[in-house]
Amino acid sequence: MQQPDHIVELRARLDAGDPGALLEFLETLPADEKVFAVASLSAEEEERLLRALPPEAAARILNELPDFTSCELVRRLEPEVGAAILDEMRSDRQADLLGGIAEGEREALISALPEADALRARQLLNYAPDTAGGLMATEYLAFPEGARVGDVLRDLRANHERYTRFEVQYSYLLDGAGRLTGVLPMRELLFASEATPVRGLVRGNPKSVGCGETLANLRLFFDEHRFLGVPVVDPDGRLVGVVQRAAVQKESAREANRLWMRVSGIVGGEELRTMPLRDRTRRRGAWLGVNLLLNMGAATAIAFFEDTLTQVIALAMFLPIISDMSGCSGNQAVAVSMREMVMGVLRPRDAMRVAAREVSVGAINGVLLGSLLAIIAILVRGDAVLGLVVGAALALNTVLAVMVGGTLPLLVKALRLDPALVAGPILTTVTDLAGFVLVLWFATMALPYFTLSG
Amino acid sequence: MQQPDHIVELRARLDAGDPGALLEFLETLPADEKVFAVASLSAEEEERLLRALPPEAAARILNELPDFTSCELVRRLEPEVGAAILDEMRSDRQADLLGGIAEGEREALISALPEADALRARQLLNYAPDTAGGLMATEYLAFPEGARVGDVLRDLRANHERYTRFEVQYSYLLDGAGRLTGVLPMRELLFASEATPVRGLVRGNPKSVGCGETLANLRLFFDEHRFLGVPVVDPDGRLVGVVQRAAVQKESAREANRLWMRVSGIVGGEELRTMPLRDRTRRRGAWLGVNLLLNMGAATAIAFFEDTLTQVIALAMFLPIISDMSGCSGNQAVAVSMREMVMGVLRPRDAMRVAAREVSVGAINGVLLGSLLAIIAILVRGDAVLGLVVGAALALNTVLAVMVGGTLPLLVKALRLDPALVAGPILTTVTDLAGFVLVLWFATMALPYFTLSG
Repeated sequence: MQQPDHIVELRARLDAGDPGALLEFLETLPADEKVFAVASLSAEEEERLLRALPPEAAARILNELPDFTSCELVRRLEPEVGAAILDEMRSDRQADLLGGIAEGEREALISALPEADALRARQLLNYAPDTAGGLMATEYLAFPEGARVGDVLRDLRANHERYTRFEVQYSYLLDGAGRLTGVLPMRELLFASEATPVRGLVRGNPKSVGCGETLANLRLFFDEHRFLGVPVVDPDGRLVGVVQRAAVQKESAREANRLWMRVSGIVGGEELRTMPLRDRTRRRGAWLGVNLLLNMGAATAIAFFEDTLTQVIALAMFLPIISDMSGCSGNQAVAVSMREMVMGVLRPRDAMRVAAREVSVGAINGVLLGSLLAIIAILVRGDAVLGLVVGAALALNTVLAVMVGGTLPLLVKALRLDPALVAGPILTTVTDLAGFVLVLWFATMALPYFTLSG
Repeated sequence: MQQPDHIVELRARLDAGDPGALLEFLETLPADEKVFAVASLSAEEEERLLRALPPEAAARILNELPDFTSCELVRRLEPEVGAAILDEMRSDRQADLLGGIAEGEREALISALPEADALRARQLLNYAPDTAGGLMATEYLAFPEGARVGDVLRDLRANHERYTRFEVQYSYLLDGAGRLTGVLPMRELLFASEATPVRGLVRGNPKSVGCGETLANLRLFFDEHRFLGVPVVDPDGRLVGVVQRAAVQKESAREANRLWMRVSGIVGGEELRTMPLRDRTRRRGAWLGVNLLLNMGAATAIAFFEDTLTQVIALAMFLPIISDMSGCSGNQAVAVSMREMVMGVLRPRDAMRVAAREVSVGAINGVLLGSLLAIIAILVRGDAVLGLVVGAALALNTVLAVMVGGTLPLLVKALRLDPALVAGPILTTVTDLAGFVLVLWFATMALPYFTLSG
């Protein structure tokens, strides 16, 4: 295997043990080369790299690696080293990484953080990662609602260095009990004199969300409003954090990827080839085992028609085709329904509407595919009856497959199961079974008319 | 079907024809109820809704609907009405929607925009939507590098209303030729006196990207840097736009969804059930047709072994199982490779490493699945030889499937084809063919030892 120069060079600098030269080299690499080179290192080398770099640079590297890899690396460092790196990250990112580390190992790491940070990390870990509480950062600027512009400016000046890390666009006005009463865009401060009460710079009532607000709703919120962030309040209206627009979009991308992985049969929604072999086989194996049993169940239908099959053995090659093709058609419909559900335009109660919309697609593609298969069968085997039997079965089964495929995710969702993981296997069981029965039942009825010999 | 109250109420207010009452009702709805209610309207009703609302409110509704639906709606409005709504959107969003409308119909709409906006829209449409040029907004603040803080503040005050829509966190300093020479965080202005040259408030050289920068690289850029936006420059270093962090994350979510749709066999990467029937059948049908031909090719292997099959007809029910299971195992590996490629940790030259990493997963799961199938076969059909034949074939074919599945996306990518659309069908053809040959060849060799009768 050809070793690209960047990896060779990175290894050399790592072995040379000069942190300055290492950092300098990393900073010259284009972003994609850097992440590829770092990901190409062994786990032991990555660990050495993180130790060699200043915590702030190590944090930047960890932000670019896949989450699983970053969690693994932090977990393996001494708690003090890991905590020093985490300390360079924003609270939401910290919580992401800590959330990916098993509870037992996480505690040592949290305890090594500065006390206030440790307390906050423990609180953030209580929220589900795809809710406002799990997505929010706790770095924000807040001022008493009675403050004047001059007070705010003095605070900003005093904490200039610290606030640089915040990426602040708004500051929040609180009443005596910590309840959010106004959102002040920072730029308004540029236009006001020092004596102006900040209260006067705020327009309208503040928009906020609760800690439990779902990702889908946050996405819609930012689609509707131009804001870069939304304040999060507890049930009493007290400000507890801020969700950035970018954090919502980033979590949406993760959600789409996890869905896609689960649809492909990766239990847990994520696999990287750097994960331990046991995790990888388990994430794939459980789903495969269930599939095999379902498959077997559907295929037993074939056993009931073995007399017919023996007489028209040419049918045997069409059984896997019917099974595969119906699975493909049905899975297209599954994917569209999953997508529409995530977008919020489809709900379980729409099952009938979906079925109605799928019938027409299924009928058109079914007739086309059925005709194609019939023609091929006649050309290859020289038997018109065989063609009719397999063509008709495929056409009918395609209609069934898209109707089942389109509605199944909705029904599975209504039962509170995971449609991504469950809909595909159930679909193929149903369509396999129906397909086999259709072909072999049609063939049994048509037995007297076949011209080819068994 | 039960009609939820919100949709009934929305229809009633729409029919009543009072824009004020309509708008008021929409604003009381939770975000997810609103998008669901609007998406539940017929196309004609949605059109009426957009006409009834003030352009600014219509623009917000369009931002929440799926892109395809928004494009369709804008396309069907008179160009003046559509342009008035587009005029309320930011340049990047405008370009997104215009890009989704066929070129012939787009022109009337662009011509109805204010002249400067039309010119800009035409320019933005030249960039691919997943590059910095396609993602950037052209609303930004720029000042001559020689300006003083007082000049900037006076400009901000003069254009306060207009800038409110910008969500500005930085302003950009340009030399006489429009070249970017510095990035000024707006908050720095709070700390400086009016006479200070802005040049002095800027730290280090500005980081910028070119118009052609890829989405993957932009994602890595924002993972590494805390910035909320990155300036985009042309080959001469002139500032042409700004890519927001949130825009990159949003496009990443779209990319993941498009990949997932294509892997599921939706050509074009998007289908909604509100799309015209012809589009929907075409997006699905072409892929299915190719699949059928590939399937047929693989299944002809069965025809060569019909003598064996007639003698051991029990084998017939195991052929679809082998085909389905190998497809499932292989597709898991395809999904993992696709994911790792998108993350930037896997490239075509890694094919050998992937194959090596897949062998072990395939061997473990293959032995487990093969044993499970063997046991079931023996229990169901009472023939140990049959069990051995199908079990061994499944075990071997699982190893093959994961190796082919893991490497295929890399090879397809190296050939500059779309792995999402192509890898699955090729995979199942290979694994079907190999699976059928393995089972039937093993069975042919074992013919004398079968105890069950054909």
